[in-house]
Parts: sequence; structure tokens; C-alpha cells
Amino acid sequence: MTLNIIDIAKLAGVSKSTVSRYLNNGYVGAESREKIKKVIDETGFMPQSYAKSLRTGKTNLIGVIVPKISTETAPRVVQGITEVLSENNYDVLIANTNLSVEKEFEYLNIFKNNQVDGVIFMGTKITPKHKKIMDKLNVPIVVVAQYMDNYPCVYHDDFNAAKYMTEYLIGKGHKNIGFIGVYEEDRSVGLERENGYIAALKENNIEMDIENLKVGDFSYESGYKLANELINKKNTPTAIFAVTDNLAIAAIDCLKDKGLNIPKDVAVVSIGDTRISEVVSPKLTTIHYHYKTSGRKSAEIMLELLKSSIKTSKTIKKNIKLSYILIERNSA
Amino acid sequence: MTLNIIDIAKLAGVSKSTVSRYLNNGYVGAESREKIKKVIDETGFMPQSYAKSLRTGKTNLIGVIVPKISTETAPRVVQGITEVLSENNYDVLIANTNLSVEKEFEYLNIFKNNQVDGVIFMGTKITPKHKKIMDKLNVPIVVVAQYMDNYPCVYHDDFNAAKYMTEYLIGKGHKNIGFIGVYEEDRSVGLERENGYIAALKENNIEMDIENLKVGDFSYESGYKLANELINKKNTPTAIFAVTDNLAIAAIDCLKDKGLNIPKDVAVVSIGDTRISEVVSPKLTTIHYHYKTSGRKSAEIMLELLKSSIKTSKTIKKNIKLSYILIERNSA
Repeated sequence: MTLNIIDIAKLAGVSKSTVSRYLNNGYVGAESREKIKKVIDETGFMPQSYAKSLRTGKTNLIGVIVPKISTETAPRVVQGITEVLSENNYDVLIANTNLSVEKEFEYLNIFKNNQVDGVIFMGTKITPKHKKIMDKLNVPIVVVAQYMDNYPCVYHDDFNAAKYMTEYLIGKGHKNIGFIGVYEEDRSVGLERENGYIAALKENNIEMDIENLKVGDFSYESGYKLANELINKKNTPTAIFAVTDNLAIAAIDCLKDKGLNIPKDVAVVSIGDTRISEVVSPKLTTIHYHYKTSGRKSAEIMLELLKSSIKTSKTIKKNIKLSYILIERNSA
Repeated sequence: MTLNIIDIAKLAGVSKSTVSRYLNNGYVGAESREKIKKVIDETGFMPQSYAKSLRTGKTNLIGVIVPKISTETAPRVVQGITEVLSENNYDVLIANTNLSVEKEFEYLNIFKNNQVDGVIFMGTKITPKHKKIMDKLNVPIVVVAQYMDNYPCVYHDDFNAAKYMTEYLIGKGHKNIGFIGVYEEDRSVGLERENGYIAALKENNIEMDIENLKVGDFSYESGYKLANELINKKNTPTAIFAVTDNLAIAAIDCLKDKGLNIPKDVAVVSIGDTRISEVVSPKLTTIHYHYKTSGRKSAEIMLELLKSSIKTSKTIKKNIKLSYILIERNSA
């Protein structure tokens, strides 16, 4: 009952090589094209590659979902992923969700319905709906940049990095430290870094001024606005810890616009060590994260999962927590 | 002769809803799963979505091929593409070739064999083999960042931008101008920008010192090495024009390492206006390109082509040449 190219050729009244050209998008005359199309429509014939891909599920493609490609960190993670997978003869299709959670759902479904052997998901907010959709995928998933229960994941030690950075400021004599953060739904950048900041103050017996804790989004505008709030409050902080380099650079611009000297009037530090942190003036004291390595590690886990030919990575607890390095420059 | 889910259910001796769950990766008991799988294998049955996608070629997915995602320009182009397509209910799958031409062929073939409605190709080198593969794709292609005969394309006016920038240096009194370029196979960045530089010298009756013309690749290392060659030659140039911001920043670092002042000893200019060009010290005089706009325009052309339901964009001459803006800062 299985049809092959010869059957299609017979039914359409054309040669086998014509059908082959048709299937490979080569030249086929209009009349033959029409006949072949009709037979394929009527029989539901599936060319070998589709049939094979449907049967075995092997496509040598890995889908990668990233929150925003026009940042510096996501491309570095993707670069690491691509290098490792490429060396192992896998190709990569990247989906950019532009920080839209709905788009994340959409792409998870696209990869579910389409032809990838696995999905590497670079997360920001991870909601119960994410988990529900991910649980339904019948290919392995590796989460990168966020910790997630029940899925293999590669992430940075955000809590301790933020705590360390705050302690660094305390060590320099700062007690009144402003914090520019992001929404807690982003567990890594929002929640963990905020918790690290709070823990450092607490352990050092510094009472936290709640007005020092500012939370916005990832945009430059948000960083600028929150820095402005911090310097306009009673008791202007002597230091500001922004959770990303981008927010720190916005803060630096804001402070400069107000005629303040960095670090003399206000110190500024952050996390990221993006390229721009080296060239901004003053050069930014920040924390180096191993973004490319995180991409490489997540791809390595994916390769392991693919070799073991499991259908889902749900409940596979293989977590890699990456460390960090303080990069001392001139902003604190 | 066309089979549907009911037929499969009958042949497998299971309920229609079981087949449906099987096809949607829901829970199906081992025995039923085995039966359904056998029938599908034997009949070559194609689920509706595959059949439909194969028949109509409509998937609402657009493939985008980029040369290197971990730069600043590619993500900006992609951002523009994604915004426009997303507003029009298309999703985007991005392939990062990491400057490998072989990978470009590979991804063109993946998109040919798989399920996209169109391909936006961000080119660097475009070889006859590219053309051959692209001619075989049965979906429209739009080329961005390079001019290409016979395909719709969106690109920048590299020749005149480079000529203008060189004339700007000449206007400042420079006659001995070093040039840091890239291989000519990259028509836009390599060939056109070099030609613009040469044309500016010629039109201004400045004899070109062939030793001033240095060509390498896109890497920071290449920029640094070529800048070093330029300052070590007899007749050190009084200005350097690097064809990308990245190469210019490498040149600035090299000059600084040699104790030279910019722009007093040597002026440095480039093309790109990437974010880093604003924060490097001295701030870089460069040319602003409309990268995001180029992405948006290429997506708009793609939407037009999709509406017209053509099968190939070969021979469609719809070219958009984008202009440029000089950004005067402190490096020249």
C-alpha cells in the first residue's frame, strides 16, 4: 500500500525521473507538473525525505529560542550553541521572540509541529504555561540562562554574583547602595540578583533603604529613569548596582548628565562584561559571565540527550551552574 | 485514495481520537501506538498539516540566513525583519552561518527542503554556486546587505558612502590616507567601499600610495595588524579609514598602544555607527547605515512577493539602495 516514486510516475503517466525532478524542484513542463500534482494530492503521497523525517524524527536540526537577538548576550550564547552543534553535524534554526512570551509559546509549537530533533530554550520568564507546552514536546529540551525544575539547564550563579558585587561595594566603604533591577518573573536577572543584593546588605548588617530598590525592565530608558529617581531621592546613594551593563550604562549617562563624577560622586557597577563595558568612560566594573560557554554546555547536553535517543528531557536533572569573575575597572 | 484519520483509525483498529492524540503527541498506550505507527508506515499517510503544507507550500514561516549573529549589525537587520513579519503574522527562523559559505549552501537547501514560504538572505560573498542554488528554490528570495543581479535586494550605497567619508578626510587636509578593508568577494564591504576610497583620491588628484591599501578579514585581529602595518610603513598616514567600526576600534587600540594621539597624530574614521562607536574614546566619526530599516524593507518586499503568490523571485528587479548619514564625532 506504500506508494513510491515509480507508482506516482505510473499513475501520472510520466517518467520516474520527471517525478524526481518535480519533487526536487527541478524543471518539469506545465502539463506533467499538473498531472503529478494531481496524483500527489489525491494519494497523499509523501516524498521519502518527509516520510523518513516523520517516521524517525531525525532531521539533524536543533531549534533555538532566544528572547531578543539584538542584545549582546543572546548572540554570544547562540554562537556557543552553533559552534558545538555545527562540529557535530547539526544545523540550528533560531527563533527570536523579541521578549514576547506569546511568541515563545508560538515557536515552541512550531518546533513541536515541525522538524527539529531538539530545542534549546533561552528563557527569561518561565511560566506554568511554558512548562505545560514544554512537557508536551516529544523532543529533548535544554534550558539555558534560567534555572528550571525538571529540565536540564545551564545557568549562571546569579544570586552569588550579585551578592559578591554588592559586597565589593560594601568593602569599598559604601553603605547607601542603589539597586537598578528588573521584574522578578525573570528569575535569573530579576529575582536572583535582587536577592543577592539584599542578602549582602543583611549579612553586613546594613539596613536596607527600600527607596534604594528600583525595579523596571531591560531597556536603556528604564535604567536612565531609575538612576534619575535614585539621585533625586533624599540620601542620594554613593553607589549604584545595576543588574545589566546596559542598565549601568544608562545610569552612567544619567549621572553624567547631572554633572556627577563616576566613581567619585557615585560608583556604578553591574553584571555582564559586554564589549561596551570596556569602552564606556569610565570603564565599567562588572562581572564576567561565560555566555558563550553556557551556549556550548547546553549544546553538549543536547548532544548527550540525542545520543541516548530519549524522546523527552522532562525529569532529567542535569544542571550546570556556571561561575563568574569580577572585572575591576574604573567605575567603582 | 486519499486517507484520512478515520481510515487510519479503522485500519489500526483504534478510535479516531486515539489517532488524533498520536498525531498531536498526546498520550497513547503502547499497544495502540504500535498499531497506529505500523499503519502510518505502511500507508504513507500524511497528517493534514503536512499534506497541506506540502500542497500549498504555506507555512507562515520565513527563513532568514545571516552571516554572523554575534556582531552588532546582523541582529539589527534581523530585528527589522522580525518586526515587520511578526506584525503580518509570519514567524521567522534564523540560520547563522558563522561566515561559512558551505553553511550558506546547507541552509539554503534546508529551507528548500523544509517548510518556509520565503527566504531572506543576508549575503556576504555571493558566488555562482549561490546563484545556482537560489535559482532552484521554489519560494521567493530577498537579498539584504548585498546587491545581486536578478534578485530583489536591499543594500546600502557603499561606494558613495566610502567615497564621501574619504572626501571628508581630504577636506580636513589629509592626503596620506591609510585604508583598512576586507576581501573583495564581499562586494558591499570589500569591493564597493574600496572603490569609493580609490575614486575619492582619484577625483581629488591624490596619487594613491599602494602601500596604504590594506585588506584583511572582519576580525579585530586583522584590523589591529593592518593598522600596525600602516603606522610602521615609511610615510605613516595621517588618517586611517577602516571599513567597519570594529576594524576602526582595533586600529584605535593599536594607535593608542603605540602612544599615538587620535585624531592629532592619526585620524580614524569608519562605517557602521554601531553602539560601541559612541562610547569608545575618542568617540568615532563614522557613517550611519540604516540596518534595521534594511531589514524592514526586505521584509516588506517579501510580503509583497508572498501576496502576489509567485513561486520564485528570480528575475524580479526590485532593488532598494539605502542612503547614509555622516556622524561627526571626535576621532577625525
